[in-house]
Amino acid sequence: MARTIVAVDWGSSSLRAALLGDDGRVIEERQSQRGILNVPAGAFSEVLQITCNDWLIDPDTLCLISGMAGSRQGWREAPYCPCPAGFDDLVGRLAWVEADFTRARIAIVPGMSCERDGAPDVMRGEEVQIFGALSLLGGAQQGRLVLPGTHSKWARVESGRLLAFSTFMTGEFYALLRTYSILSRTMPAEDGPLDTEAFTRGVAQATTSGSILGSAFSSRTLALFHRMREEALPSYLSGLLIGEELRAQGVDAADGMITVIGSQALTLRYELALLSRGIPARRIGGEATWRGLWQVAQRMEQVQ
Amino acid sequence: MARTIVAVDWGSSSLRAALLGDDGRVIEERQSQRGILNVPAGAFSEVLQITCNDWLIDPDTLCLISGMAGSRQGWREAPYCPCPAGFDDLVGRLAWVEADFTRARIAIVPGMSCERDGAPDVMRGEEVQIFGALSLLGGAQQGRLVLPGTHSKWARVESGRLLAFSTFMTGEFYALLRTYSILSRTMPAEDGPLDTEAFTRGVAQATTSGSILGSAFSSRTLALFHRMREEALPSYLSGLLIGEELRAQGVDAADGMITVIGSQALTLRYELALLSRGIPARRIGGEATWRGLWQVAQRMEQVQ
Repeated sequence: MARTIVAVDWGSSSLRAALLGDDGRVIEERQSQRGILNVPAGAFSEVLQITCNDWLIDPDTLCLISGMAGSRQGWREAPYCPCPAGFDDLVGRLAWVEADFTRARIAIVPGMSCERDGAPDVMRGEEVQIFGALSLLGGAQQGRLVLPGTHSKWARVESGRLLAFSTFMTGEFYALLRTYSILSRTMPAEDGPLDTEAFTRGVAQATTSGSILGSAFSSRTLALFHRMREEALPSYLSGLLIGEELRAQGVDAADGMITVIGSQALTLRYELALLSRGIPARRIGGEATWRGLWQVAQRMEQVQ
Repeated sequence: MARTIVAVDWGSSSLRAALLGDDGRVIEERQSQRGILNVPAGAFSEVLQITCNDWLIDPDTLCLISGMAGSRQGWREAPYCPCPAGFDDLVGRLAWVEADFTRARIAIVPGMSCERDGAPDVMRGEEVQIFGALSLLGGAQQGRLVLPGTHSKWARVESGRLLAFSTFMTGEFYALLRTYSILSRTMPAEDGPLDTEAFTRGVAQATTSGSILGSAFSSRTLALFHRMREEALPSYLSGLLIGEELRAQGVDAADGMITVIGSQALTLRYELALLSRGIPARRIGGEATWRGLWQVAQRMEQVQ
């Protein structure tokens, strides 16, 4: 039976929503700055109404939400699904919510957690992107995937199950070092366009270095010794940080193709870093979220 | 011939000075907040006069200065002495300066530089502490030494020569993460006393982790999962960072005793981190600077 799906990617700082046709095609997209940090307690239903009211008139509509809306500070806490876990585990742990403006069914997809070196790691929203990306890749059952961002996620999938993942605070470290550290003193006030030579030099430097705690200082000394132009230093620092992820993840060409998920602006540097290390990369864009949520809906129909 | 030595440790944010007897003993110490960042261009002589005028009346007095006073932003640039280098290389590259208030001779001891993974590394002041510490250890000719700080230095000495060293931005990263990052949100407003259990857990975590970019996030997730008290998180983060240095330096028990140079407050955590990994450590305090500068004076007498 054909059914309309409203897919919502509700993060910390923004909300993206899409109306999907019964074949998963995006009919319309909307965006709002009402991320969960901008939603007063108890007002989640109201914000959804403002953004998607006309899409949710038909009571047969299914609305699926991924991201931080399922966190303790969100609409309703959807407990993390522990790794290793497959797509069906997510579908089996949906957290249902009520909205007084509609009789449409609304569910939050849980995030995932794993143990890493004796400490927990968590994601919310990326798990839907990962399963969506695998579907867009023709139903791939295995692979290594990276989702760049303030907190990047590296994930490993085997036999269709997410085995484990690691969070790297790469985007946040860049902002801290760029804005507040001694390294900023030898940098221009604004980041210019990416200097790909300086960037790949940073990637290479990080690969042979033991830690970003040490390699970061080279951004200062290369400037002091006039061995790098100050305009190139932000690109170099970015390369150091992304190269550090590659080193810590131990990725090499033997791992095969790495899938980089995200907008073009975010993923370009990761593709470049991987390719500079001889590692093939491919990109899947923001459509991974819509495909992932649509797949959840499909799976629910099969189960029922 | 007996001679009085005025030893000055002139850093970025403070100035420390000592009057040394002809046996190297400290007769008197003084401190000032007039680090080089607080000295207007051209006013270095004047600041030295304010701090040490009465010590510099005798024209036969020798004043030796180490630290950032020899940087481009200092009194006079004393070009870095490249590694590997011994104590005599430092003595041979003193940069002499004039002060109009005294006829005493005044020289700046140069910093040192090395190449590390294809990028330069630099120190100013720590080289004097290192040679001073070796002297205080009975004239040791080899060893691994660490000088904790905003920018920690790890150094390796063999046959009395400083072979190479590495800078780690450990203190600065701690301040950035503690003050501005998402990790600060689950931490108390003020650091309490050191929680040694949380600290050594951080050290152990860093040792098995691939990068602080990843392990830092565990400070947040351990709090989210109520697996560490919020009051313990600053100690844990400190352990993660210092443990990262140990991991990157690849130190283990086979390296023998590590010498930690600095004030007790700074070195305590390094000694604890090393001991928790089964690595013996000993501490040399701030007297290392005075001994190093006194040794420079002794060596000059021998050469003349």
